Amino acid sequence: MSLDPVLDRIDADLPQAVERLKELLRIPSISTDPAYKADCDMAADWLVADLVAMGFAASKRPTPGHPMVVAHAAGDGPHVLFYGHYDVQPVDPLHLWNRDPFDPQVEDTPKGKVIRGRGTSDDKGQLMTFVEACRAWIAVHGSLPAKMTLFFEGEEESGSPSLVPFMQDNAKELTADIALICDTGLYGDSTPAIITQLRGLLGEEITITGPDKDLHSGMYGGLAMNPARVLARVIAALHDEDGRITVPGFYDGVPDLSNELAAAWDDLRFDEAAFLGDVGLSIPAGEKGRRPLEMIWSRPTCEVNGMWSGYTGDGFKTVLPSQAHAKISFRLVGTQDPLAIRAAFRKMVQDMIPADCSVTFAAHGASAAGQMTTTHPAFAQARRALSDEWPQAAAYVGSGGSIPIAAYFKQILDMDAMLIGFGKNDDQIHSPNEKYDLSSFHKGIRSWARILHAMTQTA
Amino acid sequence: MSLDPVLDRIDADLPQAVERLKELLRIPSISTDPAYKADCDMAADWLVADLVAMGFAASKRPTPGHPMVVAHAAGDGPHVLFYGHYDVQPVDPLHLWNRDPFDPQVEDTPKGKVIRGRGTSDDKGQLMTFVEACRAWIAVHGSLPAKMTLFFEGEEESGSPSLVPFMQDNAKELTADIALICDTGLYGDSTPAIITQLRGLLGEEITITGPDKDLHSGMYGGLAMNPARVLARVIAALHDEDGRITVPGFYDGVPDLSNELAAAWDDLRFDEAAFLGDVGLSIPAGEKGRRPLEMIWSRPTCEVNGMWSGYTGDGFKTVLPSQAHAKISFRLVGTQDPLAIRAAFRKMVQDMIPADCSVTFAAHGASAAGQMTTTHPAFAQARRALSDEWPQAAAYVGSGGSIPIAAYFKQILDMDAMLIGFGKNDDQIHSPNEKYDLSSFHKGIRSWARILHAMTQTA
Repeated sequence: MSLDPVLDRIDADLPQAVERLKELLRIPSISTDPAYKADCDMAADWLVADLVAMGFAASKRPTPGHPMVVAHAAGDGPHVLFYGHYDVQPVDPLHLWNRDPFDPQVEDTPKGKVIRGRGTSDDKGQLMTFVEACRAWIAVHGSLPAKMTLFFEGEEESGSPSLVPFMQDNAKELTADIALICDTGLYGDSTPAIITQLRGLLGEEITITGPDKDLHSGMYGGLAMNPARVLARVIAALHDEDGRITVPGFYDGVPDLSNELAAAWDDLRFDEAAFLGDVGLSIPAGEKGRRPLEMIWSRPTCEVNGMWSGYTGDGFKTVLPSQAHAKISFRLVGTQDPLAIRAAFRKMVQDMIPADCSVTFAAHGASAAGQMTTTHPAFAQARRALSDEWPQAAAYVGSGGSIPIAAYFKQILDMDAMLIGFGKNDDQIHSPNEKYDLSSFHKGIRSWARILHAMTQTA
Repeated sequence: MSLDPVLDRIDADLPQAVERLKELLRIPSISTDPAYKADCDMAADWLVADLVAMGFAASKRPTPGHPMVVAHAAGDGPHVLFYGHYDVQPVDPLHLWNRDPFDPQVEDTPKGKVIRGRGTSDDKGQLMTFVEACRAWIAVHGSLPAKMTLFFEGEEESGSPSLVPFMQDNAKELTADIALICDTGLYGDSTPAIITQLRGLLGEEITITGPDKDLHSGMYGGLAMNPARVLARVIAALHDEDGRITVPGFYDGVPDLSNELAAAWDDLRFDEAAFLGDVGLSIPAGEKGRRPLEMIWSRPTCEVNGMWSGYTGDGFKTVLPSQAHAKISFRLVGTQDPLAIRAAFRKMVQDMIPADCSVTFAAHGASAAGQMTTTHPAFAQARRALSDEWPQAAAYVGSGGSIPIAAYFKQILDMDAMLIGFGKNDDQIHSPNEKYDLSSFHKGIRSWARILHAMTQTA
């Protein structure tokens, strides 16, 4: 089956593809907030309907949380599984958005046209690049060039609690020759990238309790322990003066950067000044003596993702709070053991709590770092196909993010996984005013069409 | 004019007095939150109407913020000014209230009947003790035993921004022989107390900005500075290992406790275990080597009243926040200079901000500590009158709270002020489930009737 008419079809159909994406984006499928449960369900229904209309055998599959969508289509080539997620991040702080995050529109910007709205880049826009590539193949050739399984999750932004059990329960159905995952970005603005290493993620929520109720700071201040002070001491103690994380044993399993990888990454000529300048910063803040790309891709981190205590509204309230809270996450690399680090973190915090206070912990996910093997022929095929579509040759890169699905495909289904995506650093995913470049969407669809063709030709 | 029929009238009228108080309590006059501006106005109107009905020449007086209420009544005795405030604290966290904070009710508790609701103790219930004492005098004798000015503020819980200008602009009208202030508590459960020293209050809000937008902690974590970490380091640095505050020059003007005051306070046999035990604590957390009462009444403090950064909702969001915020207050004693401490605090914080971050400050009030002179004969008269009403003799005590109005009466109007109130430590003012004991309300009204009588008899 020839490629060119498929690419032509993609170009001609782009306006309709954008309208379809906007329909999906309008559904506020925020998975972490129980208030949006019905919307997550609706997003899954939308995908099932779209895939059935294209000829897939698609269904919504229940889990204890939000449903999975699984779709199959017959084909002669290799069996390819594609993964994406239809859930999105919360939108707060809402007042920083320049438009309704769930009323997406194409906007002209100095850097070109973008689609603005929550989930445009992470991950609905990326997910739809693959769906639209399939649509074009079917429209032109009446069928797909490969046997296909699509697998869409609705809990990626909330720790994927149902993912592993679902994969275990449906291992036979989900196993293919190779997995394709579209939830990552380009390197820079125009270099297509295949991710070969990912950081793991450990999430912890801590609640420190001092007095059993909020107190008047005039009546009790000076005598009663303030849990916000205790929390501040805990957070301040998590890094030393050199930016290293102080949790005992934290660096067990963190590999030094190999000379080979250091050289490959130096070749990428990472523009640290532009990367930080885009977000109003200029000074790398991580561990002293590390390369910037190394800090993001191959060093572990500890970040406060949220903290709160006492009165946070307008004006002033002289309360001595009963509780202080923090959401803290660790990005992990190499063979760092998430569960061992969780235990060491909890012990370290517990040891810092004064006798009169108490602390409780809640777990929010724990996944190890991932390292891809690139020996499967699909890696070289995809690299060539991407290089044909984009102005720069495709590169093997690392990622600071955490996409444990790649590791699960290997561990549970014994499949290699290729992480290829078309997001950009300035997409503001997880932030207000998220966007996806129209060129990312368009060339992303074309990229998948080329990759499917390349894998089929040589299969 | 005789006292006994007035006390009898107070006893007989108590149910009606409670109903009147409940009317006032139902108005959510939260002064710090602009959303409740109309309610503050309504509370002032309610007071004016009530006082006019009793025969006062009462009016609502505009300010740039919430209005003042000023009322006058002629009388033959000394000229007495009474101060209270009709505004209340915010009610969050609302889910910790056992009932609607603005639907007050009398409840039976193991310790006796209480009126439950926001403002019952701070300060509407206390304010109304004096109004009801006046009502009883007028009902029995047709007039008051003293020339009277009532002065009610609506901004006490939000830093009293209009108070000093209003007192300056209306000095002649407000000046009396002595000021009575009802916004404090009993000592313990049954010892009436006249406050002779008050802590000052300095409020600061700080906002630390790192990146100019919220970031994805996977994409930027390790390279971009997290302002929550910076804020934690600042807060952790405000106290040393011995609980002393580290702001340079902070202890300038902090007097040592005199032997005389130490002895008087030791006589009060402060039950530290019960005081802390009431709020689920057992270990004094302030400066090492200080008496518990000293920590509350005559040592300065620094407390975090609120802090927030990043994602604080349900679930988890791997955001690297753009900003971190804290509301911090200092209680001041002796001759500590609030403005000098504000400057030193801001410099200390500024010096801790990394080159890539910035900090802004907002001022929330600055008042020095107050020390009463007790030579005015009204002090001895009130002490005797209170001793007649309550099972224990009245005591001169300190207060950890900050009621700058007493100092303003002295500085601006050259009046001595007596701080007498009937709250209890377990009233949960500024907290969920605030209450005022029915006995505090009832005996409070009787106390003011006795005090007015005592001041008149000997004037």
